[in-house]
Amino acid sequence: MILCDIGNTSVDLFMDGKRSKLRAVDFDPAVFQEDVYYVSVNLVLNKRIRDFPNWHDLRELIDWDKYYPSMGIDRIMVCEAVEDGVIVDAGSAITVDVMRCGVYQGGFISLGIRAAEEAYARVSSALDVSFNFEVDLAKMAKNTPDALTVGFLAPLIEKIERLEKPLYLSGGDARLIAHFFSEAIVDEELIFKGMTKLIEKGVKC
Amino acid sequence: MILCDIGNTSVDLFMDGKRSKLRAVDFDPAVFQEDVYYVSVNLVLNKRIRDFPNWHDLRELIDWDKYYPSMGIDRIMVCEAVEDGVIVDAGSAITVDVMRCGVYQGGFISLGIRAAEEAYARVSSALDVSFNFEVDLAKMAKNTPDALTVGFLAPLIEKIERLEKPLYLSGGDARLIAHFFSEAIVDEELIFKGMTKLIEKGVKC
Repeated sequence: MILCDIGNTSVDLFMDGKRSKLRAVDFDPAVFQEDVYYVSVNLVLNKRIRDFPNWHDLRELIDWDKYYPSMGIDRIMVCEAVEDGVIVDAGSAITVDVMRCGVYQGGFISLGIRAAEEAYARVSSALDVSFNFEVDLAKMAKNTPDALTVGFLAPLIEKIERLEKPLYLSGGDARLIAHFFSEAIVDEELIFKGMTKLIEKGVKC
Repeated sequence: MILCDIGNTSVDLFMDGKRSKLRAVDFDPAVFQEDVYYVSVNLVLNKRIRDFPNWHDLRELIDWDKYYPSMGIDRIMVCEAVEDGVIVDAGSAITVDVMRCGVYQGGFISLGIRAAEEAYARVSSALDVSFNFEVDLAKMAKNTPDALTVGFLAPLIEKIERLEKPLYLSGGDARLIAHFFSEAIVDEELIFKGMTKLIEKGVKC
């Protein structure tokens, strides 16, 4: 069984406990003979995949009443991996979601770290600086890189810290932000765990 | 005496207790005969203004040891207006600064509301929605506009609420965010109050 997370620029595969990343533009769904379970936001690849009966869209197994119609499929998958706790998926956006007894409680979406840095740079050339990940978020800043890092990260980290525990961090920037939290479980394979749970249930969750 | 805050796109004047806004591109410093005290981030207008002896740059009255070299001049002016408290200047960026006994304690910079909305839209077309200013920031969201509004505003508002009081709100979006705070003083003329205080002191603050 192969698990596959298809984005607009890359395809993330999980096979035999190993993960590999391919460029979406080079991706050919015809090379796989076994069953592939996938989630996708890539409209071009979706059309091609439909021709292959061994490709199974996990959207069909989701109980959409639990979530909301415009909610990102990746976000639903990381939520499906967790019965109780807070899930932070830090990528191009940072999604924060709360699960309680397997029931979705809602969440919120912050900008991703790169998106935030780029947005500051667009406001003013004076704010076109990189974040300082060594900064003490508890202190008021007295230079521009620290002022932006504290301004973006301190409110967000403190808000997440006040939510329930355990706290799971996933996504490409999980390790970058992990040290700001008092306790957090970094799990970069959370999306594949959610996909596996959904397949195992085999019925609408 | 005329007070003048010169930005890159607009010039904000304060004369006889009244405020008026002009486009920077149309602005002619030669029309003023009286003394004008100004702060400016507009390099083009700065060059033209230098020729007029009745124009006085308030940068020269600032004690830069109190602040930091790359700190925005507008931000210093709103700080100069306040002896004790937190000053939030909500414009293209949202600056948050703490003053205690007239001494600058530091601060941080968040994105402005429009800058944040635009940054979300750049992350994904699915996030190209306007904020919902009627949202309950205390709740986890279950739709996209609320998820973005809570994601951007709730951490920031809660962080500011945990700082000292009194809380002063200034800038173009002051009224838009005022109702999210338990108690706040909206003062859109804070920058001119800071400029006036600096002139009255007449020596380095």
